[in-house]
Order: sequence, then C-alpha cells, then structure tokens
Amino acid sequence: MNKQQALGLVKPHLTETRYLHTERVVETALDLAARFHVDPEKAMIASAFHDYCKYRNLADMRQLIEQYDQLSNQLLDFHHELWHGPVASILVETELGIHDKDIQSAIYWHTTGHAKMTDLEKIVYLADYIEPGRVIPGIEHVRRLAAYDLDHAVFLACKNSIGFLVSKSRKVYPETLNLYNDLLGKN
Amino acid sequence: MNKQQALGLVKPHLTETRYLHTERVVETALDLAARFHVDPEKAMIASAFHDYCKYRNLADMRQLIEQYDQLSNQLLDFHHELWHGPVASILVETELGIHDKDIQSAIYWHTTGHAKMTDLEKIVYLADYIEPGRVIPGIEHVRRLAAYDLDHAVFLACKNSIGFLVSKSRKVYPETLNLYNDLLGKN
Repeated sequence: MNKQQALGLVKPHLTETRYLHTERVVETALDLAARFHVDPEKAMIASAFHDYCKYRNLADMRQLIEQYDQLSNQLLDFHHELWHGPVASILVETELGIHDKDIQSAIYWHTTGHAKMTDLEKIVYLADYIEPGRVIPGIEHVRRLAAYDLDHAVFLACKNSIGFLVSKSRKVYPETLNLYNDLLGKN
Repeated sequence: MNKQQALGLVKPHLTETRYLHTERVVETALDLAARFHVDPEKAMIASAFHDYCKYRNLADMRQLIEQYDQLSNQLLDFHHELWHGPVASILVETELGIHDKDIQSAIYWHTTGHAKMTDLEKIVYLADYIEPGRVIPGIEHVRRLAAYDLDHAVFLACKNSIGFLVSKSRKVYPETLNLYNDLLGKN
C-alpha cells in the first residue's frame, strides 16, 4: 500500500480537519522514521490509520472493547477519547486487511503510550503530538528534541500531557504514567 | 498504648525536627478521626509510627522489601523515600508488637496512597500532608477541605503531589495515580 492508497482509504472516515491532521502526521512520521532508522512503510501506514476510528459510534467501540481480549477492559473506566486507537488496531485488520502486529500496536498505543514502547510506536505517538498544525504549550521544545533524541522528545511530550491532565483534574491512563516513569530512567 | 507511650517509643528513632512533625501529625490525625468518625486509638498509633523507619539504613530496608511478600518489590524501582512506610508496617510488629492490620496498612500507604483507601489510611495520609508545620503551595485549600470533605481533601493533596513530581521530572508511584484516578470519580 502506498501513501496515496492509505490516505484514500482513511479519508472517508475523517472530517476534513482531521484528514489534514492525518496528512501532517504521516509526513512527520516519515521524517522521524528516516531520522531514527525505522521502517518507513510501517511508519506511513500506522500514522495514516492512527485516527481511523476517531468518529466511530461510542456504543460500538464499547462493544468491541468488551469483545476482543486484545483490548483492555480498563479502557472503559477512562475517557472515550482513549478508545479509538485500540479499536482501530482491530478494525484496520477486520475491515481493511492490515495484518501487521507492529503497525497495529503503534495504532493501539498512539494516544496513551505505554512502558517499553517500540521505536515505531514512539514515532507515531510523537508525530501525532508534534505535527506542524499542533499548538500546545511547550511544543517547540519537544520539536527541537525530536530532531535528535527520540526518547527525550517522547518523554517531554508525555510529561506535558500528564501535567496538563492533572492541572485540569482529568484522569490519566496508568500506562501513560508507566511510559513517563520508564523514560525517566533514561533522561 | 496511650499517646505518651507511643510518642516515647518512636522518639529515639527520629530527629528532633521529625519528632516535632510526628507530634503535629498525631494531633491532626486525632482531629480528623473525630471529624470523620474513625477509631481515635488507631489513628493515634498509626500517625505516631508513620515515620518510625524514616532514618533506617537503605540497604536494610531494601533487604526487608525483598524478604517480605507483603512489601511490593516494585518499590525498589522508585525513590527510597517511598520505602520507609512499607518497611515500618512490618517493623512496628516485629520490633514493637503492634499487630493490627488497619494500623499497619495506614503506615504502609501514608506516603504514596493507593486506590480504595480506608478512612483510617486517608486520615494518616492527609494529616501528614496538612499538619500545621507544612509549607506547601496550595495547602490552605486542602486544609479548608479537610474540615468537611475527607475524599476531596485527599484528592487535592494527591493531585498537588503528582503535579509537583511531574513538574520536577520525578517518578510517580503507580498507586499514587490510582488514588488520583479513583477519587476523581467522586469529585
């Protein structure tokens, strides 16, 4: 599957704004893949489909989470914003025939992160955070780090996300804290 | 055991500054116990001994954590500041004969907190945070809440602690996040 094919497949599932975001995430992920020696085709496909299920019906997503053992039921105790990645990791396979554990895992974890992420997972997580359309306090520091230190950039993105959520008294997914704690050992 | 006996037993294990802190935690815990209908003797004993192992040798504490199944080995991946509560929950029994699961659990969790805390655990955790000698940004709000809403006060203390640790790029114990997420459902 090439980039045009991937974007063509995902486009009908997204709003115009979200599709433009997806295009930017793909370009950012390809840059990061080249810089950090990650398979560019996997980075392209995972980033093209990371938001494939962003606009799915919540009741349907809940049912899929309950149905598939690969999807943690713990997700249901957290905001439904966290559901679309895990659900997409299943539906890209059942609906589109994308059967690649590396890609599916990068889609699964792109919102929350988790401890011991692969470089492909980190690239999709980070590309989603730093794509040029994002306006987030402190993002320029993350973008600068992303030019040469993948782990440090992911750490700072994760730290900023946790700090933001806690400042707003919103729940933090435990695996997000695990990512933060895991990378702290390396910084 | 009355208050004078408890404080007399713990005093030789603490610095003067830490002993004065302990006296204030005991008084604060007794106030909270009266307010929220918790057994005052358990609150007194747990608060008197919460820092019983604050100055123990780190190698000895590590060995005890490895030795006792009740002490989570996960603690060893985190700052040793988190070790003295769990270790004290064991040593108050083996060294002083305090055998009371409620008290020992309140001592165990007084630094980190955890999901689904008992009211006794919350009182010791909160008394340690708000005792009058503490100078912490935002503490007056926690003290005001502690006058009438135990869960909300514990939540705010926990939220402030996580926010502080993340702002300093320090590790956060997973159970502390579990406490935060757990109480968020109630606020």
